[in-house]
Amino acid sequence: MFGIKVDDEVSVELIHPSHADAVFEIVDRNRELFSKWLVWIENSKSVEDTRAFIRSAMQKYADLSEVTCVIFYKGVLVGNVALLNLKNKPNDTAKGELGYWLDSAYHKRGIMRRAISKMLEIGFGYYAYHKIYIRCATTNERSCNIPQKLGFVHEGVFREDILVNGVKMDANIYSLLRWEWEASR
Amino acid sequence: MFGIKVDDEVSVELIHPSHADAVFEIVDRNRELFSKWLVWIENSKSVEDTRAFIRSAMQKYADLSEVTCVIFYKGVLVGNVALLNLKNKPNDTAKGELGYWLDSAYHKRGIMRRAISKMLEIGFGYYAYHKIYIRCATTNERSCNIPQKLGFVHEGVFREDILVNGVKMDANIYSLLRWEWEASR
Amino acid sequence: MFGIKVDDEVSVELIHPSHADAVFEIVDRNRELFSKWLVWIENSKSVEDTRAFIRSAMQKYADLSEVTCVIFYKGVLVGNVALLNLKNKPNDTAKGELGYWLDSAYHKRGIMRRAISKMLEIGFGYYAYHKIYIRCATTNERSCNIPQKLGFVHEGVFREDILVNGVKMDANIYSLLRWEWEASR
Amino acid sequence: MFGIKVDDEVSVELIHPSHADAVFEIVDRNRELFSKWLVWIENSKSVEDTRAFIRSAMQKYADLSEVTCVIFYKGVLVGNVALLNLKNKPNDTAKGELGYWLDSAYHKRGIMRRAISKMLEIGFGYYAYHKIYIRCATTNERSCNIPQKLGFVHEGVFREDILVNGVKMDANIYSLLRWEWEASR
Amino acid sequence: MFGIKVDDEVSVELIHPSHADAVFEIVDRNRELFSKWLVWIENSKSVEDTRAFIRSAMQKYADLSEVTCVIFYKGVLVGNVALLNLKNKPNDTAKGELGYWLDSAYHKRGIMRRAISKMLEIGFGYYAYHKIYIRCATTNERSCNIPQKLGFVHEGVFREDILVNGVKMDANIYSLLRWEWEASR
Amino acid sequence: MFGIKVDDEVSVELIHPSHADAVFEIVDRNRELFSKWLVWIENSKSVEDTRAFIRSAMQKYADLSEVTCVIFYKGVLVGNVALLNLKNKPNDTAKGELGYWLDSAYHKRGIMRRAISKMLEIGFGYYAYHKIYIRCATTNERSCNIPQKLGFVHEGVFREDILVNGVKMDANIYSLLRWEWEASR
Repeated sequence: MFGIKVDDEVSVELIHPSHADAVFEIVDRNRELFSKWLVWIENSKSVEDTRAFIRSAMQKYADLSEVTCVIFYKGVLVGNVALLNLKNKPNDTAKGELGYWLDSAYHKRGIMRRAISKMLEIGFGYYAYHKIYIRCATTNERSCNIPQKLGFVHEGVFREDILVNGVKMDANIYSLLRWEWEASR
Repeated sequence: MFGIKVDDEVSVELIHPSHADAVFEIVDRNRELFSKWLVWIENSKSVEDTRAFIRSAMQKYADLSEVTCVIFYKGVLVGNVALLNLKNKPNDTAKGELGYWLDSAYHKRGIMRRAISKMLEIGFGYYAYHKIYIRCATTNERSCNIPQKLGFVHEGVFREDILVNGVKMDANIYSLLRWEWEASR
Repeated sequence: MFGIKVDDEVSVELIHPSHADAVFEIVDRNRELFSKWLVWIENSKSVEDTRAFIRSAMQKYADLSEVTCVIFYKGVLVGNVALLNLKNKPNDTAKGELGYWLDSAYHKRGIMRRAISKMLEIGFGYYAYHKIYIRCATTNERSCNIPQKLGFVHEGVFREDILVNGVKMDANIYSLLRWEWEASR
Repeated sequence: MFGIKVDDEVSVELIHPSHADAVFEIVDRNRELFSKWLVWIENSKSVEDTRAFIRSAMQKYADLSEVTCVIFYKGVLVGNVALLNLKNKPNDTAKGELGYWLDSAYHKRGIMRRAISKMLEIGFGYYAYHKIYIRCATTNERSCNIPQKLGFVHEGVFREDILVNGVKMDANIYSLLRWEWEASR
Repeated sequence: MFGIKVDDEVSVELIHPSHADAVFEIVDRNRELFSKWLVWIENSKSVEDTRAFIRSAMQKYADLSEVTCVIFYKGVLVGNVALLNLKNKPNDTAKGELGYWLDSAYHKRGIMRRAISKMLEIGFGYYAYHKIYIRCATTNERSCNIPQKLGFVHEGVFREDILVNGVKMDANIYSLLRWEWEASR
Repeated sequence: MFGIKVDDEVSVELIHPSHADAVFEIVDRNRELFSKWLVWIENSKSVEDTRAFIRSAMQKYADLSEVTCVIFYKGVLVGNVALLNLKNKPNDTAKGELGYWLDSAYHKRGIMRRAISKMLEIGFGYYAYHKIYIRCATTNERSCNIPQKLGFVHEGVFREDILVNGVKMDANIYSLLRWEWEASR
């Protein structure tokens, strides 16, 4: 419903119950792929689960703790991108985490990279964050490519940190600082 | 931040803390005019009050009970338009109330009429409401003109119903039904 | 339990769990008639439902937002009368809504009119309301007679406003202002 | 407002904000006497404090945990009587405590004894309690007389149990069982 | 986990989920004996129920309203002892209640008496209580022996006060005052 | 109050209001040193602030989300050690963070290393965690020595991640996995 244009092909919309059917359809169709990396997939078994997730994400937007969007490509809902955990602890610099997934039918078109560029504008521009970071399984190459292409810096490897379907995975941590983002614009 | 284009001049954006300064500036500059009709004006004395109002409106958006937007005209924030009270009682048909105000510097350009047309799409289209109504003081001619121009039907006069600054005012009630809205498109 | 005498035949008592059996018995016996106008009837299927309604009404009495009474006629519980929605919005004059139902076995004895006279004293006298209003389906003649006999003024017709069992009904709105009530005593 | 007649002279009314002025006037006028036995007296310094107490008592009535009444004698508000702590622990028989105070100008007329008789009917009759008890300082003779006159049984002395104004006092415990009450009627 | 040594044989530990299996095993094995005096036994049918009880007791420790411990004898968990109801009412002297149970396989070794001596130190020493009391069924001789051996004073008999499995029982009340405890050390 | 012995000199006690005075005295005496690394120090200006922190830590112990202890050395309270953030997100392996500070008068005696050894037993033994990690400013050499001496592995450097008194600091991340801890015992 309410959105921001990224370019002539791509836009992001703040997630809303009217997106529930399309989101669930993608999740369900990509279930095998997504279930390798995304633990919530096993709790997303019906459009009702998706609707509950959306209500929770809207609540967090109101709390100023998350900004969860769906991605449109040529008018079709194709993925999800979110700024997460924006409520920091007192002795942290202001920072947020990026999370994202994309319908496999729309891979290799630069859609996620373009959508995330807009989310960086939101995080650094509207929420005054100092640092935005991405955590992804070291074995998830496609996901790790995103921060590398966007100029994020690799900060380390969290050992046996992610747990999906009983499998423990190491995680790469990448970050972009405000002044790096400003310099790159 | 997140918005919907109405036409080449007008757009609406879901209200967000980043709008606080501009909203308060208009409220403060139009204080004399607004205080005749809007009771909240006396509690809106600083940008902090505006920020608290915005946080409350975002919460109601997450609850699916209100949709509060700011109106942009040629890129300038000029007003506010909202679908209110969308959580109905069990034996009411689904209905919502429209509330609105506009910077007096931008009167007479059809801005509010255009913004409300989009809000009607949201109310009838995304929230499946059967009826949208407007209540305005009988003496507030400019405000009463809006529903008349948009094809709303006058349903009655609520006697001594509105209370602003100790003055009791009669209120006109106008409504538009879903099938009337669909017929007019 | 705790009550107010209206006249030698009629009294009202603040609703209490000890009324649950008698209330449910009337609701159940009048189910066909009540279900035409009262949407809650379909959720009132057992004395447990009635008990839950009573607990909720007692809570609202404590919140000063409702006063729900049962009506006694010659010592027999015969109906319900309530001042509802007493917590007003900031730019409304202080007002409350009257709701009521009566066992059909006790129609045509002026019981409801007498009970409501006492409720008006409570609303205008103990809660300092400026306006008390009644909303009833235009087709519910018996219910619409009550405000007419009590000197309420017809303010308008809310189109397709009430929804009972999937049927949309127009609603008459009647009101009595404090000065009208005082003049009539 | 809502009440129960005890006899031609005495009645009890469920406490309501409309009683606040009269209650505070008595508390304030009897401050020296009451402050010997009632610890809350020091926190009851204005009619606002009384109003807050009344709101809290109404809440507990809605919770079915207390029944707080004011006593009227020949139409004048003269005291307070309450069934307290009606929410029992799982391994207690159902029981409640009686608390009371009376304007000293109305002592020696049997008013409290009569009011309490009605409260016993409420406790044993409407709330199905098995036991009603009274705890009062052993030095408070007037208060200890009440349970003795009403047939309560002395169960023991709680040593250094009551604390008022830094003074520790022993407390008499009296109780009346349901079958004792039934036998006495 | 976190504990206090009483003597070379006995210690008490603050209750923790890691105690759940051992606690439930004792409760289950002593079910016939315990069910005569302890009403909660019928709601403790699985280790899950025990775990829920432990979580609730930990919550009350955080609230400073209870201190619930398990008793170890020569390294084996053998019983439970708790300071209960430490949040007093405004006109009570500061006081708490002692509750306890012991695996029947460990009776007659003075374990409970030793454990309670430490709990008295906690109640009078760390929580500054003026009075610690015990309430037990007059027919529960073993339980009544404990306060008698520890120098508690008998204050009275609460008639038909305890309810277990539909049986109403009289209760002995014993108490120990701070100055009595200090004098006995 | 409730504690665990580490060795003949060192023990840890679950934090309790009775520790408040001693904790605040250390914080206040080490204020200059602590304020370089610990952001909460500026909000800890009185023993009341310490008491509020303790109440909050007790609440988190009850929630199973934190275990906050004070460290005793030869009977003197000398520091604080805590397992933090034990409530993990769904797709994380079970992990907790270690936080700690020590009165500078007791540095260089191995006290913290010994206390942490016990906390690792608690985290891996009683809470079944897979990973325990430490985050400390790269410039805080004394603090970084601790995980190095205890066999933790360095996982990376979080750039400009810690914010104390307006200074952004890089942070070292160290972790110990369950199987590493088991192998080292």
